Formats: sequence, structure tokens, C-alpha cells
Amino acid sequence: MGEIDELTMPLEEAMRTQRAIRRLKTDPVDDALVRRLIELALKAPTGSNAQNWEFIVVRDPEVKAKLARQNRRAWGIYGRLGRRIARNDPKMQKVIDAVQWQADHFEEIPVLVVACLKGARLPFPPIAASSYFGSIYPSIQNLLLAARAAGLGAALITLPLWSTFAARRILGCPFNVLPCAVIPLGWPQGRYGPTTRKPVEEVVSVNRYGNRAWRGNPAAATQQR
Amino acid sequence: MGEIDELTMPLEEAMRTQRAIRRLKTDPVDDALVRRLIELALKAPTGSNAQNWEFIVVRDPEVKAKLARQNRRAWGIYGRLGRRIARNDPKMQKVIDAVQWQADHFEEIPVLVVACLKGARLPFPPIAASSYFGSIYPSIQNLLLAARAAGLGAALITLPLWSTFAARRILGCPFNVLPCAVIPLGWPQGRYGPTTRKPVEEVVSVNRYGNRAWRGNPAAATQQR
Repeated sequence: MGEIDELTMPLEEAMRTQRAIRRLKTDPVDDALVRRLIELALKAPTGSNAQNWEFIVVRDPEVKAKLARQNRRAWGIYGRLGRRIARNDPKMQKVIDAVQWQADHFEEIPVLVVACLKGARLPFPPIAASSYFGSIYPSIQNLLLAARAAGLGAALITLPLWSTFAARRILGCPFNVLPCAVIPLGWPQGRYGPTTRKPVEEVVSVNRYGNRAWRGNPAAATQQR
Repeated sequence: MGEIDELTMPLEEAMRTQRAIRRLKTDPVDDALVRRLIELALKAPTGSNAQNWEFIVVRDPEVKAKLARQNRRAWGIYGRLGRRIARNDPKMQKVIDAVQWQADHFEEIPVLVVACLKGARLPFPPIAASSYFGSIYPSIQNLLLAARAAGLGAALITLPLWSTFAARRILGCPFNVLPCAVIPLGWPQGRYGPTTRKPVEEVVSVNRYGNRAWRGNPAAATQQR
């Protein structure tokens, strides 16, 4: 593989067609492409510009197998629960099927990127937990959008890391490095496409929580769009 | 303001030129544009597709003033500390000046978007805190990128929310809604532009943390790019 072209997909198109792609082909994914995705991930902001991310690129079958085992252990509980809760929701059942597929084929995923944070998480002030994770998830979203623009399948999962103790041991992380999320990467079996979301009016309040002022005026909202 | 054009800026350009813009003009920002940014924020993934975000769009001077006071209170401590730590770092001093400007002019910011999470944060498993905030920061990053593509200045801050107790009271949030971050929006006084970041090789490990295998081979990395 030679030069990688700029990811020129229009921003809004990338956002509107980004979705979790869990069924992946076993075809190889070049390091150069993974490198580019991570380079773009680093462009996201971090708290106090600390740039305290760490990314572990996992291709070693042994490390993958250990994470696969952790993932199955957690999914054994959550998946059973999820199926029961979603038993009358065919759309959610489809998602659960895809997560099940991912759990069953975890070892065959070409590349796992584990996004970590380095450095202590302050116990104070109360907002500190939010600020802490606010230094890694913007970069993860950049990575997911860049994967989408490159046509690469990706998803954001945390189940393989349910035990941070086990995750640190598997990945060789010292106490001051916390594995936060896993992004499995591979060429998609399915297609990217539009997603369905709640209407904006249902999740926006004006000035104070619960004041759904945008809801009452669909005409204005439509006209303004 | 009529129709808003699609945000067609190429993805990679938006990412490479996104940066915190803190010095904002007082010119008004149309609701229709804010609506579009939030609509695109909603396209980001949430854990178990719960779509449990809440966005509060603050324009009321009284609410702004209360958040400004909270911000100044926290900045009074952090800012002094920051100036001392960064006293030999002119680049960091410039960032601190911009944050100071923001604190001094907080009431004049045209729009504040407060991104919140709705629903309980599970105490178990250990990764739950990461999964929880992983449902709001991807959407915040979408919002920031969309603002950049629209030419609107934005930043990601948490200081006004340092006391979640006070933040909930100011914004009228019940106990099950947590204000996570504030995104001040306005037309920029300055310009967007490229950012400097650590090299990829310094933050990537291969298979296990600390194995900087990409570092030793800059030729290959360059060739592969």
C-alpha cells in the first residue's frame, strides 16, 4: 500500500452515515491506514491540552484471544439480559445479533485499537470524572469518523475491558494508564448507512432543563432549517 | 436566516483545523444553526444505543451570569496554578490568556450549549464510568467539528460545572441528569488553523503498552503514509 489519500468525505455525510459496523471481514488492514486514523484521533482536544492519550494497536493473536475471553465473559451476562429486555424489539434484536457475532468472531478481527488515558484521575472537583474521560472520547470519535470516511468498519466497545484489573494485566499497562475503550477495525461485511435518532426537539431544553421550547414550534424549526 | 447548507468541508480538513476558539464576537448565532449542530451531535454513538443525551441551549443572561460566576470561582484557583506552572512556557501562557479572556467575557458569549447525560451511572463494572461518559463525548466532538465546518467558534470546557450540585441547581436538572460539559458558541475573533500534537509514534504501543515498535522505523512509516 502506498500513499493514503486525504479523507475528503464531506463532514456532514461522514457523520450522517457513521454507524457501528461489527461484522468484519478477515482481510488485512494496513498499518499505514491505522496510523492515519490515530493521527487524526490526536487532533481532538484534551483537557488542559495534556495530550495524555495512549493507543495500543493489537494484532497479536494471543492478546486478542485474552481480550476475546474477557469480552465473552461480560457478554454472557449482558447479552442474556439484553435479549430478555429486547425480546419484543426486532430492531434491538438485530443489534444484539451483531454484538453476538462480534463476540463469536472476536479473535478474527484484524486490528483492535485500545484507547487509554495516562495520568491520575483527580478525585476532586466532582466534574473531574467527566473532564478525565473528556480527554479520550473526542479522539475516539475522530477515529470512528475517519474509519467511516476510509470505508473501514469500526465500533466503540468497552465490554472487553469490564475488569480494568484484567485489562491492564493483558495489555501490560501500569497503574497510571487506564484502558478506556476498544475500537475493532476491519473491512465491513455490511454497508454504512443512515441512522435513526430521536428528534432534536425531544432532547433540547432552552435555558433550563425540561423547557422544551423548540418542541412547540415545528414550523419555525422547519422554516429555519 | 434561511436554509443552512450542508457542511461539506472535507472530514480531514475539519479535523486538522479544529481548535478551541475562546475569543468570540457578540454577534448573534441563529437558533437554526445551533439546531443543526445538535442534530449532528446526535449522530454519534451512545452506549447500548441508549441515546440518553440532553442538551441545554442557554441564552438567558441570568443563567449565563450564574455559570459565569461558577466558572470564575474555579478559574480563580486553576488559573493561578496554571500561570505558575506555565511561567516558562510562552505557548501555554497564550492558552491561559485566552481562558482568562473567556472568563472575563463569559456573560457576552452568544450561546452556551450544556451537554448532559440522563440516567443512572452504574457503580459496576469498573469500566462503567468510561462507558457512561463515552455516551456524551463522541456527540460533543461531532458538535465541535460541525461548528468548525460552519466557521463558528467553539470550545469544550468543564470548569463552569466544577460543582455538579450548583450546576444542577442553576440549570434545573433533576438528580438523574448530569451536566457534563459546556460548549460556548459564537463567531470567532481569531481564525481556525492547524494544531500541533505529539507524533503518533510517541503515543502508540504495539500489542502491549510500552512497545513503541512504530518509533524505530520512521522510514517505513513515512513511506507507508
